[in-house]
Order: sequence, then C-alpha cells, then structure tokens
Amino acid sequence: MVEKEEIINKLLNGELKLYEIDKFTENTREAVDIRREFLEEKYKIQLTNIANYSLDMEEALKRNIENPIGTIQIPVGLAGPLKINGLNTQGEFYVPLATSEGALVASVNRGCSAITEAGGANVRVVDDKMTRGPVIKAKSLTDALKIKDWIRDHFKELKKAAEVTTRHGKLLKIDPVVVVGRYLYPRFVFKTGDSMGMNMVTIATENALNLLTYKTGAHVVALSGNLCVDKKPSSLNLIEGRGKTLVAEVIVPQKIVENKLKTTTDAIVEVNTSKNLIGSAISGSIGFNSQYANMIGAIFLATGQDEAHIVEGSLGITTAENIEGDLYFSVTLPDVPLATIGGGTRLETARECLEIMDVYGSGKVGKFAEIVAGTVLAGELSLVGALSAGHLARAHKELGRG
Amino acid sequence: MVEKEEIINKLLNGELKLYEIDKFTENTREAVDIRREFLEEKYKIQLTNIANYSLDMEEALKRNIENPIGTIQIPVGLAGPLKINGLNTQGEFYVPLATSEGALVASVNRGCSAITEAGGANVRVVDDKMTRGPVIKAKSLTDALKIKDWIRDHFKELKKAAEVTTRHGKLLKIDPVVVVGRYLYPRFVFKTGDSMGMNMVTIATENALNLLTYKTGAHVVALSGNLCVDKKPSSLNLIEGRGKTLVAEVIVPQKIVENKLKTTTDAIVEVNTSKNLIGSAISGSIGFNSQYANMIGAIFLATGQDEAHIVEGSLGITTAENIEGDLYFSVTLPDVPLATIGGGTRLETARECLEIMDVYGSGKVGKFAEIVAGTVLAGELSLVGALSAGHLARAHKELGRG
Amino acid sequence: MVEKEEIINKLLNGELKLYEIDKFTENTREAVDIRREFLEEKYKIQLTNIANYSLDMEEALKRNIENPIGTIQIPVGLAGPLKINGLNTQGEFYVPLATSEGALVASVNRGCSAITEAGGANVRVVDDKMTRGPVIKAKSLTDALKIKDWIRDHFKELKKAAEVTTRHGKLLKIDPVVVVGRYLYPRFVFKTGDSMGMNMVTIATENALNLLTYKTGAHVVALSGNLCVDKKPSSLNLIEGRGKTLVAEVIVPQKIVENKLKTTTDAIVEVNTSKNLIGSAISGSIGFNSQYANMIGAIFLATGQDEAHIVEGSLGITTAENIEGDLYFSVTLPDVPLATIGGGTRLETARECLEIMDVYGSGKVGKFAEIVAGTVLAGELSLVGALSAGHLARAHKELGRG
Amino acid sequence: MVEKEEIINKLLNGELKLYEIDKFTENTREAVDIRREFLEEKYKIQLTNIANYSLDMEEALKRNIENPIGTIQIPVGLAGPLKINGLNTQGEFYVPLATSEGALVASVNRGCSAITEAGGANVRVVDDKMTRGPVIKAKSLTDALKIKDWIRDHFKELKKAAEVTTRHGKLLKIDPVVVVGRYLYPRFVFKTGDSMGMNMVTIATENALNLLTYKTGAHVVALSGNLCVDKKPSSLNLIEGRGKTLVAEVIVPQKIVENKLKTTTDAIVEVNTSKNLIGSAISGSIGFNSQYANMIGAIFLATGQDEAHIVEGSLGITTAENIEGDLYFSVTLPDVPLATIGGGTRLETARECLEIMDVYGSGKVGKFAEIVAGTVLAGELSLVGALSAGHLARAHKELGRG
Repeated sequence: MVEKEEIINKLLNGELKLYEIDKFTENTREAVDIRREFLEEKYKIQLTNIANYSLDMEEALKRNIENPIGTIQIPVGLAGPLKINGLNTQGEFYVPLATSEGALVASVNRGCSAITEAGGANVRVVDDKMTRGPVIKAKSLTDALKIKDWIRDHFKELKKAAEVTTRHGKLLKIDPVVVVGRYLYPRFVFKTGDSMGMNMVTIATENALNLLTYKTGAHVVALSGNLCVDKKPSSLNLIEGRGKTLVAEVIVPQKIVENKLKTTTDAIVEVNTSKNLIGSAISGSIGFNSQYANMIGAIFLATGQDEAHIVEGSLGITTAENIEGDLYFSVTLPDVPLATIGGGTRLETARECLEIMDVYGSGKVGKFAEIVAGTVLAGELSLVGALSAGHLARAHKELGRG
Repeated sequence: MVEKEEIINKLLNGELKLYEIDKFTENTREAVDIRREFLEEKYKIQLTNIANYSLDMEEALKRNIENPIGTIQIPVGLAGPLKINGLNTQGEFYVPLATSEGALVASVNRGCSAITEAGGANVRVVDDKMTRGPVIKAKSLTDALKIKDWIRDHFKELKKAAEVTTRHGKLLKIDPVVVVGRYLYPRFVFKTGDSMGMNMVTIATENALNLLTYKTGAHVVALSGNLCVDKKPSSLNLIEGRGKTLVAEVIVPQKIVENKLKTTTDAIVEVNTSKNLIGSAISGSIGFNSQYANMIGAIFLATGQDEAHIVEGSLGITTAENIEGDLYFSVTLPDVPLATIGGGTRLETARECLEIMDVYGSGKVGKFAEIVAGTVLAGELSLVGALSAGHLARAHKELGRG
Repeated sequence: MVEKEEIINKLLNGELKLYEIDKFTENTREAVDIRREFLEEKYKIQLTNIANYSLDMEEALKRNIENPIGTIQIPVGLAGPLKINGLNTQGEFYVPLATSEGALVASVNRGCSAITEAGGANVRVVDDKMTRGPVIKAKSLTDALKIKDWIRDHFKELKKAAEVTTRHGKLLKIDPVVVVGRYLYPRFVFKTGDSMGMNMVTIATENALNLLTYKTGAHVVALSGNLCVDKKPSSLNLIEGRGKTLVAEVIVPQKIVENKLKTTTDAIVEVNTSKNLIGSAISGSIGFNSQYANMIGAIFLATGQDEAHIVEGSLGITTAENIEGDLYFSVTLPDVPLATIGGGTRLETARECLEIMDVYGSGKVGKFAEIVAGTVLAGELSLVGALSAGHLARAHKELGRG
Repeated sequence: MVEKEEIINKLLNGELKLYEIDKFTENTREAVDIRREFLEEKYKIQLTNIANYSLDMEEALKRNIENPIGTIQIPVGLAGPLKINGLNTQGEFYVPLATSEGALVASVNRGCSAITEAGGANVRVVDDKMTRGPVIKAKSLTDALKIKDWIRDHFKELKKAAEVTTRHGKLLKIDPVVVVGRYLYPRFVFKTGDSMGMNMVTIATENALNLLTYKTGAHVVALSGNLCVDKKPSSLNLIEGRGKTLVAEVIVPQKIVENKLKTTTDAIVEVNTSKNLIGSAISGSIGFNSQYANMIGAIFLATGQDEAHIVEGSLGITTAENIEGDLYFSVTLPDVPLATIGGGTRLETARECLEIMDVYGSGKVGKFAEIVAGTVLAGELSLVGALSAGHLARAHKELGRG
C-alpha cells in the first residue's frame, strides 16, 4: 500500500502521467483504483459510485426510467490534463469519457497533450438557448398572417404566460415564425440556465400557446412541429444554434505539430479541406468535421446528458490554417444541449463524473460547456493529425519511390 | 418469497403485465428483481451483471477503454411485449432500453401494446452494408479520371486485396466514385456479417488502396474522406443507406387508434404531414420523424452499440395514411449500424441485454435489426399518437367553444 | 380587317378565349398580332418591341452587357386570365411567360382557369428583404466575439453608414452573425423597395464594413461570404427568406377538381405527399414542389429579372389537404428576388411584359409579387393535378382488371 | 466601309481585341455589327437572326410555345477567346452570353484571358445521363420489396420496354431503388445523346412502368416522384450527377495571378475556403461556389437550353490550392442538362449562338459541354480573383495603418 500512495503522490506532483501507472501496478483493478483515488485526493471528492453497483433505483424510478430491470455499465476512461482558457474557467482538467470504442480515450488524450503544451484551448460559449417550435393551423393564409402579427405585437404577454410556469426559464424571442400555406411554425427561444431545459420550454411554450389560442383562435396541431429542431440533424440549428453554441481554437506551434503530431501544418490543412469541407459537401452532410460525435457521445454518457442529443451535439465545422508554419485549428459546435442539474445528471455515476471537473450543480454549466468544447477540439486535432501523418508518410514514401 | 414466485408465474402466463407488479411489491428493488427473474426464467438466461457491479476491466482494457477509472451506470427499463413479423424472426419480444429520460420506456411500451394488439409490426432489413470513403489526390483531372477508370476495370483485384484482410467482410462495390477537381472520393461498400464492421472495412479498404497506389500512383490523402459517411448526418446515407436499412410498418385498426391511442387516423396523418414532413422540410432537417433518436439511443446503449452511431441511426422518414379509417403507419431507417458481436457488445451488461432478445452472437444481427425497427415503430407511433390526441382534444374543445 | 376588330372585341367582352382565336385566323402571325392588339386595347399600352427587333443597344451597353453582338429572342406566350386576391391587388390578369418548353403556357393556363373559376388565388407577400453576408476574419476567437458585440452595440452607426449610400435602401438588421473559428459571417438585411437591390445592398454593406474595419480592426476577407445566399440554393434562405417571401393558396371545390382537373382531392393529396414531400425528402432536395422553376423561369425571362435568381426563386413547399372533399392547395416561395425598376426590367421587351400586368415602375413590386405567386400556384396545381389524374386513371384501370 | 474591313481584319489576325473596337467605331451599332461580321467571317456562319426580329412563330408554335404574343429580346455579349483542352475539343473559342447583368461578360472575359494565357482550361465530361424517378405504391412493405426484387431480376425486359420508344435513348441502370414504407422510388438512368432528353426518358420510363405494372401489380402514383431530381436543387444530383457531370481545372502561374488577377495565390485560396466552402456549409447551401449560376444562366439563355435547368446546372464545388506559388483552380459541376439538338436549340437565335462555337446539331454535345465547363471556370476564377484582390488590398492597407 505504501507503493500506491507513492504513485498517487507522483501523479499529484506531475512526476508520473496517467497512462504510465500500469507499469507500476500488478493488475488493471489496482491501476483503476489508483487513478480514482488520485482524482479523489486531487479534487477532494468521493468516487464511490463509479466503483460500485450503486444506482438508487427508487430515485431513478421517479424521474428517469420505467419498468427497470437493472443498469448497464460502460467503462469510463480519463483524458487529460487539458488546459482550458475560457471565460467561465481557466485551468487544467481531467475529462471522463464513457465509451466502448477502443483507442478513443487514448486519441483524445494525445490531443489534450498537444493542446496543453501549446498553451491551452481558447474556448467560448458563443450563444446559449433552448427552443420549442410548435405547428399551428389557421383557417386560411390571411388568418395565419393575422396570428403571426398578433405574436409579434403581443410578445410581452406571451412571455409572461410562458415564464409564469418556470423559475429559471426566460423567453428571449419567438423567431423565426415560418409560414407554409396556412400552417404557422413559430420558434420559441428560451434561456434555461443550468438545466438542459427541454421540459421547461415545453411547458412554458404550451402555456403561451394557450393564451395564443384563446386570443386568436389559432389551432395548435402539435406542440412540436419539428422547427425546434430537437434530436434531429438540421441546417436551422447549424445556422441559428441551439443548446450551447461552442467554439474552441488553438494555435499549435510548428514544433509541436512535427514532434507530437508527427506531421506538418500543410498536411493538416489539406486533410481538413479535402475531407471535412469538400468530402462533407459532396456527401450532402451537415457535419463538416471528422469525429465530433465520438467526443460528444463519450462525454454525454459519462455525465448523464441525454444520449439522443448526440445527434444535434455533433454538428459543426472544423477549420485549419497555416500561420507562418504554425497551425491554427478550431472547432465550432453550434448545437450542444448541456446540463449540470436535472435529468440524467442526478444519476450517481453522472454526478461523480461531473464532480471530477467540478461542474456538478447550479452555476456550473458555462464552465462545463467550455471543457466540452476543449475536449472536442482535442479529439478532432488528434484524429485529423493522425490522418495527415499518414498522408505525409505516404507522400514521402511515394516521393522516394518516384 | 412465495408471493414473488406467484407474481413471476402470473407474468409468465400473461395474467399480469410488467407495469402492474409495482402494486404487489414492497419496494422498487423487489419489483426490479422480479422483472429480472421473470426474464431469466422465461428465456433461460442469467442476468447477474445488470444487477451487480461486474464489468471485467481487464477485458475492457484490451478492446474498449484506456485510462479506466470505473464505469457509469444507466438504468435499463423493459418495453414489450412487441410482436414482430420479420423475415429473420417472428414472435413477441421484450426490449431493454437504457435511458435517463423519464417516460420514454412507458411511451415505447404504449406503442408496443398498440402494435401487438394490431397483429404486430411487419419489418424488413432492406439493405445491409458498411462503407469507407477515402480521399485520393491525383496529379491532375486527367490523372484522376485515369485512376477512376482503373478502379472500374480492376474491381476484382481490389476486391481480392480488400478481402484478404478479413474472414467475414466482402467488398460488394466501389460506388460512387466522386470526382471534385483532382480529388477522387471512391466509396468502398462491404458486407460485414454480424459485426458492425467499421474496423474491418477500414483495414480492408487500406489494403485495397495500397494496391491502387502501387499500380496507379494515386496518393491517398486520408483513409476517410467523409464520403463514408461515418457518424455524421448526411443525405448520401439517407439515399444510399449504410449499416442496416430498416423499414417497419403496421396497420392499426380504427378501433385501436381510438381506444388505445385516444385519437383518430386523420389526426395522426395531419400531425405526421405538418410536423414530420413539412416541419422538417422547412428546417433543413434530414430527420423526417419525431423521435427515432430516443429509441435508437436507448437500445444502442442497452446493447453495447457505438453511441456515436446514434447520429446516423436516427435518420429517416415516417409515413402515415388513412386506409378507410384504419391507420397505415411506417418508419424507414436507412442508416443503422448494428452488431451482435464485437465492440461494445461484449461488455457484460450489453451481452445480457442482447440475450433478453436472444440476439447475442453470430447469425443474430438480422433478427436484432428487425426488433430494432419494430421498437422504433412503437416509439414513433406512440409519440405521434400522443401529439395528435392533443390535436384532437384541442379541436373538440375549440369547436365546443366556437 | 373588320374581322380582326371583331375578334378583338369578342376577346374584350369575354365571348372568346385566347386559345380559341386560332380557329378564326389565317395564320399564326395574325393570331399573334390579334392577341397583342387585344392587350394593347384592353390595357391602353404599346407592345411594339416584342413584335420587332428593337433593343436599344446604346442603352444596354451602359448597364446590361459588354461586347454585344445582338440579341437572343425567346417566344412569349400568354396565360390567364388569373384571378388574384391580394393585399396589393385584386383582379384578373394575363401573365406573359417566355419559354421554349412546349406545353408550359398551356399547363399554366389550365391552372389559371381552375383557380379563377374557384374564386381566385389568395396571395400574400409574407416578407420582403435583400441580404449581403460578408466574411470577416479576426485575429482570434476572442477578437471575433468582440467584433460581434461591437456590431450588436453599434447597429445605429452601421445603419447610418449603410444608408448614406442609397436613397431607398434601409438596413433592417444584421442577423444572424455566425461565428466559425475566428471567421465571422454577419448577414446584412435590407429593405430595397421596387428594385431587386443586390447592387444597392452590396454598396451599402461595403460602406458599413468600412466603418466596422476602421473601428474594430476587423478584416473583410470577401464582401460576399456566401451567407447572403445569392444565386445558390440554401436552407438558410428557405427558412429565413430572401427577396419576396410569397404564399398563395386556393380552395378548389370538389366539382372543379373533378370536372376541370379530372381527378379527386384524395389523389392530389397523395401525389403531393408521396412526390413533393417524401420524394424530395429522400433525395436530399430543398425544393419540395413539382415545377416552381418552370413558372419562375418563364416569368423571370419575360420581365427582365436576373436569370441566375431562378435558382433561389424556385425553392419552396407545396401543400395539399382534403377539406370535406374540396381541395386546399398552396405554394410557399420563401426566396423570390423581384424588381419592377432597374436591371433587366428596363430592356424594352421586359418593360412591355411588365406593362401587360400594369407592374412596370415604382410602387408596383408588391402587386407584381402577388401575380408571380398566383402564377406559380396555377402551374403547380395544373401539374400535380395532371399527375394525379394519371394516378386515378391507373387505379381505376387496375381495379377493373383486378 | 474600308475602315470596318480593316478592323475586322485586325480582329482576325489578333492585332485587335474585341473590347478595343469601340475606340475605332462611331457608335455602338457599328461596333455590334463589326463583332458579328468578324464572327461570320471567322467561322463562315450567318448571324442574321440575332441582328433581326426573325423568330419563326409558326415553327415555335409547334414545339415551344402556346398563345404567343411576340418575343422577348435579351442582349448577347461575347467572351473569349477561351482556350479549351478537352477530350472532345481543343482550341480557342468565343462564348456568347445572354444576360442583362452588367459587368458579367466583362468578368468572364477577364477569366478567359487569364486561363488562355495560362495554357487553357483542362476540361472533362466525367459522366453523362438523364434520369426519371417515378413513385410507386405497393400493397405493403413485403409487396414493395417483391417489386424491388422484380426490377432487379428483370432489368433486361424493362430496358427493352423502355428503349422501344426511342432511337437514341439507352437505359443504363435503375439505381437507386429507394423504399420508404410501402412506397418505392426507382431511379431510371438513361444515356440520351445530343438532346437534353427529359421528354425521351419520360416516355421510355412510362413504357417500362407499364410492363412493371402489368407483371407485378405495382401502382404508379406519379411518373415523377422527385427522385429524378428535375429542376430542383438536390444532394442526390450533387452526389450522383445528372445531365453532364463536368470538371474544369487550370494551373495559373504565380505571375499571371499577380499581374492579371492583381492578387496572390494564398489570397485566392483563403477566399475560396472561407466563402465557397465554409460560408456555404454554414448556410446549409449545396452550391459551394461563388457564381456558377451567372455563367450557366447566360450560356443557357444564349443557346436555347431550358431556363429552369439553371437550378440544377449551377450546383457544384470550387477548389483552390497553392502549388509552390502557382494557383490550382477547379470547378466541378455534377448536374448540367445540355442539348445541341431539340427543344429550344432550334430557335433561330439559339442556333446561331451554338454555331459561333460550332456546336449546333448531332454529335456536338460533348464539345459544347467542355466549352460550358471552361466558361464557368473563367467566370468563377474572375470573381474569386476579384474578391481576393480586394482582400489583399485591404490587408495591405490595414498593415500600413497598423
């Protein structure tokens, strides 16, 4: 046991890296324990649940599941440290990733290392909102436009009706209001604070619609008319954003590109242009990136986010530029629904994973969003880097042979 | 304990429904145990892992995770029985769904009940393939077209080179081969059997590309040029399919629409047209449905599928028609990557969830795919039904008031 | 010549229809002359140019062409009368269509006839704007967000800088301002009056950008960053609109559906759903209609609109519903750039075609837009009707055989 | 008159450029005449119709128009010479462009000059086909799949039935056959020779469908189910192509980039990436270019192509690369329907415009396609070059001020 303490101490003071401890441990179980205890010590938290079968089914039954028969278990690995330069947080973080895809954690880890060495990821939450877009049917086009005008002219009353149902939700705007024949699709846009907010905005929108119906005779066909757009990929959300709109960037010095990523800036730029931009364009894809879904998926599962939101969360565009040899690299994710309270975040293991990053509970979602953006940047840089290392290697080989 | 046996017996002979047992049990834990034991008895399987902290980290470390610190736990609920009329299977099934979104299991359950009462879901695996689409750079347009012709003329050799790397994978075609300037994007299309197949087709494609490079001087910029399209939403996959292409349909008699779904066929058709078709169209969405992502997500997590594939898996189109008062309802999912072996399916809890449906291991993926399609149909019918019940209720109320 | 006068008189008092005059004339030339003279008499206009080679090349050289060698000629046919119930106009109109596609004018004509008999097309200009979306590059993400904030906080100054360059243009908003990495795409949205406005908004946007650059150090990479979106099909314009956003609807009584369109309401609804909605969805198309491009194309050429705007102008969605046997039918065109002054409208033949509808010059673009919407409705109803007549006929035949 | 001959002679032997003749002529009319006579002399053709009101309405009435009242006139300007290095043609061409958008001809002209000086445009017709995609309804999903199998198994019979209706059309494949619920969307793909082919493939497809209906009981809902995709923008056509699939490329030496385009290769690459790739991506656009629609529109009008096909014809992707300082620039147009016989090409002025390029009549469509591709390359290079010249100028100015 002395030895274990020693390893943890070395981890704490940076003499040892996370992936190196397997060399000093007898078996996987011990290594797993050490990593966890290191986190517990470093952050003064308790990680009992991810080490035990511990889900409180009584609680889960109230809010999360019906007809329960047990729980699934998915392994959680740790990537990091990842340096984040945000508005809500600055510092280095370990990021828990739940996945069964081998090599993903290692790949993200490599990206974290390059980014941290380069000075960290600059990240920003560019926008923050949750939406509900019902479909309304009017008696005629003329009537539909009257309802549209009524919505514009009575925003304050609709806002009041919506907000009376919630403590934290604020109705920001109803925009756009799309007219198709005599159908009307108004998009209700809310600020929802630290919870993901779908339930909140659904209830609030319903109350506003009751007022609208009462005043104008508008008929609500469905509370969701797919202009939300919830859990479906869409250009609307790509353009307008939904959930958190995130951007992360890093400038990787030429040396790090060469030594750590084993490639060149030009090779990365070409892979990004030919694959993420042109390749996606020619496929009719709205995911102009290489693997956002992997990082978004793994961090969503680890932290109790809604798995169906991976669909939206993985939209976005990667850019790469050569700045006098150095690499400018960025990820833009317009549509990432996130929560640090409510929903699945209250599940015991999710809470612990959030605590590893100190982002469980109220007032933490901005910080969490910044870490998510940085993590996606790390994974994306790592994969595009690896692909372009192959690109470069093949180019050299072909040159030699030519 | 006598009582417990009695409940299980009543479940087995159909006297009791799954959601009714809470009335006879003292607490949630007991109800959970009873449901699990019922499944164990009914299907002669062991469900020890979903009831215990049991992940074998030693094994996971080999294939699924790095830097592990433990596992997350997500509750699993049971929907069903769901009657499936497929080519690979016929019969009634209980479907395990892992989710933290309250009411989802109950919603799917309601759909299962309506479908089963209506005679079951007709399901088919319309197509089955896995793809890899590299990006190649030629010296010029002329050169690119020469390489394109070479690919067409030497398909057999490329097929041989690809298939030498795999026991189960078969290269079906290389199509389309898209040319953009001097870039070339050939799409390698494989049959992969019971495994999801991404790794298999990546390795096989790489070997074929080695031959191509050697023979033509083609330069491979990246093994994936985003024409795959892997883990990104795309029109290409919507049109051409990827993974399993699934269709499920049901004809719900007017009586069941009215009594069980509390709505009318016309109300369902209008919700489907105005929301799933027009609403998605006007949002620039390629998900012409209401909630495929929820069912795909919950079944993917329960059974160890790759969570990032939820992005593709949830693409698709719902149709609804009025056939002399009865409801024709269908879901089409062109792009569902699935496995019953390999990857995350070997995780202990995933295996048990697959076993509940008797779809773990070789030769089972067709059956599994059919159950997945039926489950999506159930969830979709339930939600569209619920939305249109509201539609109908509001219409009646407005009429009364008018 | 007495005879000619007689025919024209019969046309004027409605005893004769346009397509019937060929029976009473000796040759095509005479029929063409009579139609033209009928219009001249009815509307008190001169149609000398469409009957003669008359383009004033001196004038064209100033604004419309370089290196001229002559003119092309495309035949113009007349559809109508079409009854329009709009906000800007009510009444019956003849619509000039320039096309070389045989049967198009006849098809639109049939639609006009059905609509007019049904009481006319209800049309509205739902929105009206012209946009320019430059791409700006900032030094970093942080800098990009500062510029974004500056734009939000100094809208009034930017508006002033923009509007100083134009008499008629008004800057309505700069929205959205999309951030991708360190690039910024602000969309400048203007009201442009009766001219199409692309030149106006380009100059105005440039002036506003000069201010922005001067104040913030923002670097404008290109005056158009493709967020305009000008002359390219886009989901952004489908959702947000550009040019005139038009909707037209008609309720066609069951009798007219049966007698004039030779089909049933249900057959039309099914063709619309399976072709225009589902068929377009599965093709990754953003044109959820059957032939808007034909009508938009023919009316654009006849009236001197920019032919490249046919790309945007033909986006849109057709809906069809069964209302107790009658047909509700609508077209929605979110993105139709139109002008009644400037650009190609000053070409002699374009002006005459505009005059046929009394929409040449200032203050007429709203009326013109309404006629355009009604014309698209007519052509769309005619084609969907014809397709569904075939649908119905085949169904009957199969039934008889079955 | 001596003078006129002299100018024409200087044009013929290259001493004078087209845009320079205005200096030596008294008025526009004379300059227009000289340009036309130069073409007549150079190519031994007659250009009487573009100089006169001459449309034979008798002929037009048979195939192109109904209810004619005259013709519109649009000025035609000349761009070139443009050097084309194709498979079907090599040499220099003058391209007639019909437009009312001032500066377009001049802009294309500038591009022609840069390309020709750089050695010409390398162009290829990558693919060539015309399609029709009906929608079929089956009794059930099972039935739909039987019909799908029947189509696959009886391709030869369907081909025979289709081809019996046409002399030139060949049915290449029926692919994809998309299934949505119980609807079936087979895409009939034809080779159509020198005519655009829409009518041909419609008739041929109808005959094949008659056989299909007779043999399988399939019910054809509509001859076009929007999987064609005709005259609507679509990802399907972007990926699979329709009409002529065209690529054109040029390598512009650094000197020409700097001296003629007044910019740098890097500036052009950045404008292309930030505007045509990223800007279009973030707009949900499937036109990843800057102005294909302008050139396609102007050449379509001049040569009697169907104006509604401008919608499809302007889809495509522009690429730009820096090759050691020189500029690699390409345009890819997957979906350009073209004809040199039939339809509007028989209109007198269209025929003359085709004759200017020696592409009127049978056996000429491949050559025509190559010139079209080169013209689009010229216009695109010119505009992207101009935008990036501004980009560069601003950068220098800002640097000076900074």
